[in-house]
Amino acid sequence: MENYSAQIQKALKARGMKAGDMIGVQREKDYYEGMLMPRFETGDQNCIVLKISSGYNIGVEFTRGTRFKKISGQPKSRQPLKLEKYNPEPGKKNIVILHTGGTIASRIDYETGGVIASMTPEEILLSVPELAQIVNIRAKMLFQMWSEDMEPGHWSLMAERIFEEVKNGAQGIIITHGTDTMHYTSAALSFMLQNLPVPVFLVGSQRSSDRGSSDAAVNLICAAHFISKTDFAGVGICMHGSMDDDFCFVHEGTHVKKMHTSRRDAFRSIDVLPIAKVMKEGGIEYLRDYRKRDDRPFTLKKGFDSRIALVKMHNGFNCKVLELFEKEKYKGIVLEGMALGHAPVNVLDKFTKHHKKLLDTLKRLTDDGMIILMASQCPYGVVNMNVYSTGRILQQAGVTPVEMTSECAYVKLGWALGNSKDALGAEKLLKENVVGEVPERIDLRAFLY
Amino acid sequence: MENYSAQIQKALKARGMKAGDMIGVQREKDYYEGMLMPRFETGDQNCIVLKISSGYNIGVEFTRGTRFKKISGQPKSRQPLKLEKYNPEPGKKNIVILHTGGTIASRIDYETGGVIASMTPEEILLSVPELAQIVNIRAKMLFQMWSEDMEPGHWSLMAERIFEEVKNGAQGIIITHGTDTMHYTSAALSFMLQNLPVPVFLVGSQRSSDRGSSDAAVNLICAAHFISKTDFAGVGICMHGSMDDDFCFVHEGTHVKKMHTSRRDAFRSIDVLPIAKVMKEGGIEYLRDYRKRDDRPFTLKKGFDSRIALVKMHNGFNCKVLELFEKEKYKGIVLEGMALGHAPVNVLDKFTKHHKKLLDTLKRLTDDGMIILMASQCPYGVVNMNVYSTGRILQQAGVTPVEMTSECAYVKLGWALGNSKDALGAEKLLKENVVGEVPERIDLRAFLY
Repeated sequence: MENYSAQIQKALKARGMKAGDMIGVQREKDYYEGMLMPRFETGDQNCIVLKISSGYNIGVEFTRGTRFKKISGQPKSRQPLKLEKYNPEPGKKNIVILHTGGTIASRIDYETGGVIASMTPEEILLSVPELAQIVNIRAKMLFQMWSEDMEPGHWSLMAERIFEEVKNGAQGIIITHGTDTMHYTSAALSFMLQNLPVPVFLVGSQRSSDRGSSDAAVNLICAAHFISKTDFAGVGICMHGSMDDDFCFVHEGTHVKKMHTSRRDAFRSIDVLPIAKVMKEGGIEYLRDYRKRDDRPFTLKKGFDSRIALVKMHNGFNCKVLELFEKEKYKGIVLEGMALGHAPVNVLDKFTKHHKKLLDTLKRLTDDGMIILMASQCPYGVVNMNVYSTGRILQQAGVTPVEMTSECAYVKLGWALGNSKDALGAEKLLKENVVGEVPERIDLRAFLY
Repeated sequence: MENYSAQIQKALKARGMKAGDMIGVQREKDYYEGMLMPRFETGDQNCIVLKISSGYNIGVEFTRGTRFKKISGQPKSRQPLKLEKYNPEPGKKNIVILHTGGTIASRIDYETGGVIASMTPEEILLSVPELAQIVNIRAKMLFQMWSEDMEPGHWSLMAERIFEEVKNGAQGIIITHGTDTMHYTSAALSFMLQNLPVPVFLVGSQRSSDRGSSDAAVNLICAAHFISKTDFAGVGICMHGSMDDDFCFVHEGTHVKKMHTSRRDAFRSIDVLPIAKVMKEGGIEYLRDYRKRDDRPFTLKKGFDSRIALVKMHNGFNCKVLELFEKEKYKGIVLEGMALGHAPVNVLDKFTKHHKKLLDTLKRLTDDGMIILMASQCPYGVVNMNVYSTGRILQQAGVTPVEMTSECAYVKLGWALGNSKDALGAEKLLKENVVGEVPERIDLRAFLY
């Protein structure tokens, strides 16, 4: 509590209150109830920080008139838990939970008031006992990290590990994963694990798992239900389909984005419908066709050339950013262009004089063998660079349109470069529809689904 | 036609066909009908390019078995049109249409097969005669450009011109504008035109105006209806609310994004509901509270410091991009972070060694007075950098969270710097909720509205 003001420390001490206590605070007309938290390093030291039932922290300014009371003591800290030995049952699919970190495996750090990743796979299983009734489970720790910190190297390691587990008989994989960049990882695994014979699902949580309101359990249970019954084979994301804890959507790994910073149903399928809706009780409603296991050989293609960038275009974009990647000897860039695949390249007046420089730079870079792809900053809809003159000028400068999300395009570019001898080989892979990343048909219903 | 293969040129000549003719092409089992277009410079020279009724071009491969026939001759070229003098009627609001370009004012270029901007404001009025029945109209040409080519200087000129027109008595403004970056412009005008006493609407089209399927007319008519009846005062976007031509949404200028590359209803309000739904017959349904004219003085604050950047974070982000902006003596950067406002800054293993460099760079830049804001790459939901340790580490490095779309944050940053003496002054403006750009309350319904 030592980060609070002397005044607050004194008041808390007088009432015998300590971090973790449930308290009520009355300030003027407003009343707040929540768990007393230590002060943030960056917060106002004269605000009492409460973790309210929504899971978020609020600060209540402490003034003369502020009243507060203790509601109950600190919740018992978690006992060290151990996964009890259980006997796999013959009729159930054998799946492996690979743990990589993120909120789904995080808990509140009562020291700093934030959320940190520190739950073991055993703890996850103990907090979601239903899982063992649906599938036979093994759980393994792979990483303990936030998804924003992942690098392409982590994607390759993940793919390698999944490959081994499937080769060793796993009939399905659940990867617990931070949600921030889950859609980057799902795209990477889709390209790296060719002709998967089993379902592989990334599952996360928008709230930490040790709070009543966590969505982790439903996401895990729905993924297990789906894996236990489906003949889908490939990589997907299984996350809440609504704000309630009633069902999940199963999204294809190459057609999904995180569309909301905090809602449980933040993940949405892009330009195609989700593969299925899975009720937490186990009911499955398929929404469209999907890939099934076939006879092609299951292959690991874990290469990735990380000398690539994803660059958002905007009014006032400075083309020196692209020159930097030229100096850094990058192999490719995905431009997140405007709308159908545009960038500021038309010279019209005194303000747009430098636009020609952008066009010239793009031409020089592509002439020198750099691959420059054009995706869109609009989340939905595909790029079409033949409609407007701007798109066609950009194509003449060597820019290639791609019909997928910008994140999927970024991942595919690094993967294509990492699995080819040279730029020509990568271009060939980029032209192929490798794992269905280019939708056969845009489903306009996906926009508001 | 000279860009086509010799074979196609010969076949066309034999049938007396030329660009602009309506023709039918039978290839194997497929039959296509459309306007014969000149070949794209980048297209396959052995494909016949047709503009089909959807407005898009398709290429049909020309082989031995391909049959084709002429359906009708070239449509008459547009007569030079002149706006007929009409008498403004006393009971109607006097509005000014400021023309800046974009699809709404574009037509098919029969030379290149693309869409180019070249329609005059007079032509717009003649193609949408209903406008004159709703409001009294004057039309003026400001720019003739695609919105992707706009620079901050264009925003300032636009604001200046609107300011003059309103000072001279305009009771409403419609700005015809390309859709690619309409939401950047609507944010810029929102900040530059303080305490607007009238409604100002950006209106565009997702299809060119000289085709039957254009959505331009409905967008213009709905904007005129709304302006004619509303007491809303401020900047907004008026665009289709569905794929049909039945109604438009009126979006607030600081809470809107282009969410789809091609759908008519591509624009969506973010985190708040649209202000209103406007039926093309004139009915208005208000969906929430909105700003009305008040007694504060109408002021033009058109300054903008364009030494700013908008940078998308991603797994594998190279922090030399930020160092480049340091060298370029930029004043500020908006990071489009992951989810709640994250970036790869945690050092965990051999792959993440360079993450510390990103954190150190951010700290050095902010210590040196650069303003670094954090928005999210999730289109919906606000940034909250107090939930996870990553967010709090970034705040300690001087990064400031902002609760608005990344595009709005980019515009506000340049505007704040352009209207302050120094970084401190800009920081003060950035903390203020200047024009309601920070929503008082997030409306979760906006996500799937």
